[in-house]
Amino acid sequence: MKKFFAELFGTYWLVFGGCGSAVFAAGIPDLGIGFAGVALAFGLTVLTMAYAVGHISGGHFNPAVSFGLWAGGRFSAKELIPYLVAQCIGAIAAAATLYNIASGKAEFVIDNTQAGAFASNGYGAFSPGGYSLGACFIAEFVLTLFFLLIILGATDRFANGKFAGIAIGLGLTLIHLISIPITNTSVNPARSLSQALFVGGEPLSQIWLFWLAPIAGAIAAGFIYKLLLQTHDEA
Amino acid sequence: MKKFFAELFGTYWLVFGGCGSAVFAAGIPDLGIGFAGVALAFGLTVLTMAYAVGHISGGHFNPAVSFGLWAGGRFSAKELIPYLVAQCIGAIAAAATLYNIASGKAEFVIDNTQAGAFASNGYGAFSPGGYSLGACFIAEFVLTLFFLLIILGATDRFANGKFAGIAIGLGLTLIHLISIPITNTSVNPARSLSQALFVGGEPLSQIWLFWLAPIAGAIAAGFIYKLLLQTHDEA
Amino acid sequence: MKKFFAELFGTYWLVFGGCGSAVFAAGIPDLGIGFAGVALAFGLTVLTMAYAVGHISGGHFNPAVSFGLWAGGRFSAKELIPYLVAQCIGAIAAAATLYNIASGKAEFVIDNTQAGAFASNGYGAFSPGGYSLGACFIAEFVLTLFFLLIILGATDRFANGKFAGIAIGLGLTLIHLISIPITNTSVNPARSLSQALFVGGEPLSQIWLFWLAPIAGAIAAGFIYKLLLQTHDEA
Amino acid sequence: MKKFFAELFGTYWLVFGGCGSAVFAAGIPDLGIGFAGVALAFGLTVLTMAYAVGHISGGHFNPAVSFGLWAGGRFSAKELIPYLVAQCIGAIAAAATLYNIASGKAEFVIDNTQAGAFASNGYGAFSPGGYSLGACFIAEFVLTLFFLLIILGATDRFANGKFAGIAIGLGLTLIHLISIPITNTSVNPARSLSQALFVGGEPLSQIWLFWLAPIAGAIAAGFIYKLLLQTHDEA
Repeated sequence: MKKFFAELFGTYWLVFGGCGSAVFAAGIPDLGIGFAGVALAFGLTVLTMAYAVGHISGGHFNPAVSFGLWAGGRFSAKELIPYLVAQCIGAIAAAATLYNIASGKAEFVIDNTQAGAFASNGYGAFSPGGYSLGACFIAEFVLTLFFLLIILGATDRFANGKFAGIAIGLGLTLIHLISIPITNTSVNPARSLSQALFVGGEPLSQIWLFWLAPIAGAIAAGFIYKLLLQTHDEA
Repeated sequence: MKKFFAELFGTYWLVFGGCGSAVFAAGIPDLGIGFAGVALAFGLTVLTMAYAVGHISGGHFNPAVSFGLWAGGRFSAKELIPYLVAQCIGAIAAAATLYNIASGKAEFVIDNTQAGAFASNGYGAFSPGGYSLGACFIAEFVLTLFFLLIILGATDRFANGKFAGIAIGLGLTLIHLISIPITNTSVNPARSLSQALFVGGEPLSQIWLFWLAPIAGAIAAGFIYKLLLQTHDEA
Repeated sequence: MKKFFAELFGTYWLVFGGCGSAVFAAGIPDLGIGFAGVALAFGLTVLTMAYAVGHISGGHFNPAVSFGLWAGGRFSAKELIPYLVAQCIGAIAAAATLYNIASGKAEFVIDNTQAGAFASNGYGAFSPGGYSLGACFIAEFVLTLFFLLIILGATDRFANGKFAGIAIGLGLTLIHLISIPITNTSVNPARSLSQALFVGGEPLSQIWLFWLAPIAGAIAAGFIYKLLLQTHDEA
Repeated sequence: MKKFFAELFGTYWLVFGGCGSAVFAAGIPDLGIGFAGVALAFGLTVLTMAYAVGHISGGHFNPAVSFGLWAGGRFSAKELIPYLVAQCIGAIAAAATLYNIASGKAEFVIDNTQAGAFASNGYGAFSPGGYSLGACFIAEFVLTLFFLLIILGATDRFANGKFAGIAIGLGLTLIHLISIPITNTSVNPARSLSQALFVGGEPLSQIWLFWLAPIAGAIAAGFIYKLLLQTHDEA
């Protein structure tokens, strides 16, 4: 049960901090934090929660991570569903809080005809830079694959594991530095779901890509890691 | 007594560095550090002082942190008042130094009709982005709550505690990345008090919110952590 | 063989993340990550992979690093060729993936008459800031020399070695903060080769400098370190 | 002798990286790294060299740090002169290299009537933001004082000392985030000397302030630390 709350609070923080920085602070003229600031915010949500509750739940905060760790033989199938439920509840609760705060500004409105509205993900006309469905799929697949290679490698029992929270958190920052213009960066189905629910319209109907591509990339990483990189069998 | 000086110097540095970067360097055309630079500066004041004097006083530098650690059962009630006194003295001394330096520029003046003047916090007309009192209360409450969850988690005796200074410092950076446009970011009553005293006017009369919301959020975090996340009783 | 794959995946990630952030996210108006974001991205590719696969291959991801470690007596000559092959394959595969994603944007084209096209390196007319061949040679030589001093020092058996991944990764960030305007920053022959192959034209004919200068600087560092800085003979 | 070379190479890197990022990359339109990028670069020079050669010489790279550690009882008086000599040689050699590279750009010229030319420090008319001599003195004194409190605290034998390189390096980043607009940030007499020698004119005649204020602040920190913060006598 403590694992459930750890995943719920951790994913709440990921969405509140990452999407919140995008909604409130990215685009302010002159002083705004831009894409680099949002990238840093997403990474720091994971870095901070990895050190805060990582010893409780392992610190997934992301359905793709849970699937990838399962494929890599580090996580049991029977815990997958409760972890996913906790992650989605946390993400949606965070999006609701963001909506409440954002509504406290007079001119606030979510325009779901615009790419990236309320920090939603999208492809084609809803890609911030206008990238095609194919390009967006490749980007989300490759980025999640490497995110899981970082996670599997940095937490390998032969690795320098106490630094895993730094490597994984800043790895998520790196992923956002590359790909916000492509898909507004998902690599996390729960984060995509929560924002799409509040945006609706076309971004909500594109949600399938942001479950399919990250989870596929994560599972691929689990098998690649076991086959090509793992130096010894895990106990 | 060494604890008292550690908190005083630490909070001085938090206000001098965090508010100083905002006053001197944020808004310079083209080259200025913007909100992201200020966010980094606030976080680094805590990261640096956590490693410098954290082994002396625990490194609170913030009345809300002291209240939250008390609620979480990590800090004794009888030390609360001396810690708060040290924090407020340090913060006010830092604001005085900032005022002295800023006055060394010919055109310097504090315009207390403007949101965020001299790095002060505010809501409504004094919120940098024009957010309502309710939105500002929620933001300060939620952000301080999570700040304390990070602190309580990262210093839990089952956690990877040597990294706590990094997680907590960069957690404060993250909080600023999200919320400078909302309240100019407090989560720290001492930091709000020191700037409001030099600004006066309406920002000073709004100071109650930046004591109430952070301390309430911090106390909530203490109880949530004990109830839902703490894996074992502390000795 | 696991070493081969570790170098291949690591160098793929270095090029995908570093050059990818430059191609997709650096120049977007107002919100783009700029040279500082690209610098952070390059450094984080190395930081993340150092903790993920550093325990497998040592984490070179760069032919100049392999040469420098050989000159410093830390790497055997007979492994040089397989490491270089893995690094070049990984880099070229990453550039191919970047090309595929970038092509998913309607207006995409590589203009090889422009400095820095597709994140390529160059001197003279192909230096982003118009620096001469001589200036570019000195910059690449000195920067790679110091990159290797950081690597050799931080992994010395008398050093605080668990932090080497942080020091080396952020060292690469620092190198980019200095020199993107000079050569678009190489210090890595594999990264220069992969981008030049896709750009062709004059940038491809300038590739010799980005093999010669980094490798010469790295070898110089190996001898300097052994002669002037190494405190004890390595076992 | 190895200590001498460690200080020489370390201070070379501090000036080459910190001042180099300012000279080459800070002011480029749209993509430039700005003051925040320069702040990060200065800090990373110290972070990287602390892990690379800190185990050899202690990693001062700054005459004020050597004086402050002497005042704090951590460094012997008879080593002061050789350390200062090594630091000044390294700094001047780095400035010479920067001059050579910068000269490789056709339009390069050092205009010593302009504040901050070739990354020089200054006050009054040569302060980037036009701050008075008094304001500049206070800023340099206070910032160096806290820089030394961080160094003395983070390397105290009761502190979490393996992280000192991170705390000290990022502490220097923080100092630059605050004060580039005030004095272009010195806190390091060697770094001020090397740039002033190449700039000449009024900036060279202002060099006294950037020896006096940092060294005075550093010595004050040594005594404050011993008196108010040190928990036990050092062996």
